[in-house]
Amino acid sequence: MLKESFVAELADIVGDSHIRRAEGDLVPYARDATPLFSRRPDVVVFPGSAAEIAEILKLATRERVPVVPRGAGSNLCAATVPLSGGVVMVLTRLNRILEISPDELLAVCQPGVSTAELGSAAAAHGLLYAPDPGSRTVSTVGGNIATCAGGLRGLKYGVTRNYVLGLEVVLPTGEIIRTGGRLWKDVAGYDLTRLITGSEGTLGVITECTVALLPMPATTRTGVAYFTTLADAGRAVAEVIRAGIVPATLEFLDQTCINAVEDFAGLGLDRTAGALLLFGDDGPAEQAAASVTRIAEICDRMGATGYTLAREVAESEELLAARRCALPALARRGPMTILEDATVPRPRLAEMVARIDEIAARHDLVIGTFGHAGDGNLHPTCVLHPTDEAAIARAHQAFGEIFSTAIALGGTITGEHGVGAAKLPYLREQLGEEHLALLRRIKTAFDPAGILNPGKLGS
Amino acid sequence: MLKESFVAELADIVGDSHIRRAEGDLVPYARDATPLFSRRPDVVVFPGSAAEIAEILKLATRERVPVVPRGAGSNLCAATVPLSGGVVMVLTRLNRILEISPDELLAVCQPGVSTAELGSAAAAHGLLYAPDPGSRTVSTVGGNIATCAGGLRGLKYGVTRNYVLGLEVVLPTGEIIRTGGRLWKDVAGYDLTRLITGSEGTLGVITECTVALLPMPATTRTGVAYFTTLADAGRAVAEVIRAGIVPATLEFLDQTCINAVEDFAGLGLDRTAGALLLFGDDGPAEQAAASVTRIAEICDRMGATGYTLAREVAESEELLAARRCALPALARRGPMTILEDATVPRPRLAEMVARIDEIAARHDLVIGTFGHAGDGNLHPTCVLHPTDEAAIARAHQAFGEIFSTAIALGGTITGEHGVGAAKLPYLREQLGEEHLALLRRIKTAFDPAGILNPGKLGS
Repeated sequence: MLKESFVAELADIVGDSHIRRAEGDLVPYARDATPLFSRRPDVVVFPGSAAEIAEILKLATRERVPVVPRGAGSNLCAATVPLSGGVVMVLTRLNRILEISPDELLAVCQPGVSTAELGSAAAAHGLLYAPDPGSRTVSTVGGNIATCAGGLRGLKYGVTRNYVLGLEVVLPTGEIIRTGGRLWKDVAGYDLTRLITGSEGTLGVITECTVALLPMPATTRTGVAYFTTLADAGRAVAEVIRAGIVPATLEFLDQTCINAVEDFAGLGLDRTAGALLLFGDDGPAEQAAASVTRIAEICDRMGATGYTLAREVAESEELLAARRCALPALARRGPMTILEDATVPRPRLAEMVARIDEIAARHDLVIGTFGHAGDGNLHPTCVLHPTDEAAIARAHQAFGEIFSTAIALGGTITGEHGVGAAKLPYLREQLGEEHLALLRRIKTAFDPAGILNPGKLGS
Repeated sequence: MLKESFVAELADIVGDSHIRRAEGDLVPYARDATPLFSRRPDVVVFPGSAAEIAEILKLATRERVPVVPRGAGSNLCAATVPLSGGVVMVLTRLNRILEISPDELLAVCQPGVSTAELGSAAAAHGLLYAPDPGSRTVSTVGGNIATCAGGLRGLKYGVTRNYVLGLEVVLPTGEIIRTGGRLWKDVAGYDLTRLITGSEGTLGVITECTVALLPMPATTRTGVAYFTTLADAGRAVAEVIRAGIVPATLEFLDQTCINAVEDFAGLGLDRTAGALLLFGDDGPAEQAAASVTRIAEICDRMGATGYTLAREVAESEELLAARRCALPALARRGPMTILEDATVPRPRLAEMVARIDEIAARHDLVIGTFGHAGDGNLHPTCVLHPTDEAAIARAHQAFGEIFSTAIALGGTITGEHGVGAAKLPYLREQLGEEHLALLRRIKTAFDPAGILNPGKLGS
């Protein structure tokens, strides 16, 4: 239990209307989008400025009280669950877009702005904010940066890390620092901008974000190809890359996902196919068209059982919807889904999916896999019932094996979702004890009292 | 002076043929490419493996002896000068390219491989290693990563940081860790890959590099435009960006540089012009041609006094040579050149150059400025005589004012060369004391005994 004097000081900092202590008000902040992880915080605060955040963190460091910063709570690895109780700090009041600069190709915004809102504001100036995590309609820019979120355009455009130019950050000890700035080229000091990006709220609280924008591509073209097996689709992907094409979109669904999506959305997908490959590219009209036509030809040559190129934007949106709705479609198959994101080198994709299928069958689990074929970034998704404890235990066993397999194939336990509390137990296998010890020393360099998001990365 | 027992242990680790102590053998390692900084090391070692490097660093940590890792020594901010004596560790024996993977679009190499050699090896597979610092024929991949080197393609392709996927690093305490790997998407742990990139040999010694490659663009087209003033050229650059064009190359020379280049290389440049803008783009043939044609049209519309588009590769190489030889051309004007790289937001470029000209005139110095117009990355270059101590003092004064001006305009004291010993005194003005204190704590998390490249970043 928190001391009453601590809570009173908190209320003084943010104002009475921006602090919650009632049981019912705490419940929504006990969880994020990760199943099976839940812990009620003692208090929830909604600060309105970096100065208030600095005061809160100084107080928390003095009193040794955990603080868990949080945006929209759409995290998938329990990175924003307050495992040790204490304070959940919700950053959604910091929701202003401060600047869109077409001359400098950048935007400055507060962390609580939603990713989709930033995208729309940029688009109004003919500019593209390239990172597009699946959660972008709800997730925040600050949360995306804190997790180094990926998305569907990673192969051609990279991930969030590639677009963060500068940050304002409040350290756990209360100092407000600025990292980077408005420049692509800036090597003055260690690269704290990238160190904070992906640090999952364990090193500091992001209070302002400067991100790079690109000129909006003139057109986007999309197509879909079907294959008998995912291995066939994997060979086609390899051939596309070998042909010197790095398209904006190269996504796949396995047969379980195709059927789930078809049940859910009735898009007319070929249910007999073993795998579906969704491909797309953007740029000047002729170039985008040439790119998707070449990809379709390569798929055809590599044994696709059929393919379609979207003729218009609406048709293109429909094809993309097939991929975007994979998770909700699978979610309809059972009351709980565990969504993971093991990632392997691109040429090992088909092998990895075959191993996942074998692991799922051996543990008697339903696991559908979709993901980013161009990145080797897989989302094996297990559908099960939250009261079936035996199945949950088998799922944990299965995901442990999936992570070990990804590491053995030269991959990672997490491509874009993060480590959080959910994957912390698997991190040692990937990084080794000496690397983990270094992460803990870096954590201490930022957070000597260990108050910021304890029990997560750096613990 | 080093203890004899320490030197004997060093010799045991690397073998007698890979250690130097004779005065004459130490002289070349007293300096890098930075004028005015020099300090002879006590001993120079040439280790042949990560295991040997680990042994050396353990020994140095135990005995509290400084170790300065170094590649080709082409650094421009005295980052590889052994200011406290001790050991210079030369990494040029680690010079093997271990893998070029067209399927995974990556290369694995040792740190002592030259940047140009890696580029050629990638090109033989139809692939591009995008970073191209001006020093690329001599500098090493490890040195480029240690400094996060930039180059002429920064605007479209980014800098070295954007291409480093994974590293093997020996910590100052002797542990060998791996960061990142072969994947674009990997968020398992803090982003040590990017933290080590640009850390200037102060956090660890890089012993293996995994870097991303791109499909080689089909064609490259180049053009040049002349303007009456650099401000006119700056307005044309702004208009190019506003038109949604982000070309591969967008470089400028001021009038001092145009004349120096023309004296040096006789390329037929227009000596009457106040500024020269070199532009180029790559990609499919029609697209690259369309891009440079549009840029030429914009320059024309924005008041260029003339422009030329290269019709063939040889002509294109000649135009690029005008930019690439700016430094050697200026170097012929006097026996010593001090080359800096203050950087400002792109729209402030012309203003910054005007301020540099004013500062140079006031201090009675010859400063020519060239650089990357697309990045706002300027290379003001002062030509003077090494025995003219009064001029050197005035140059220091002038560069201090140039750095303050860059910071005031929202820029940085270093875009791509680094901080080293030369710019450490100016870092506080840009980052502030609290930020610097954090850098020192991070340095200590890696290097508790402070043996690795002391007196540089993190000190």
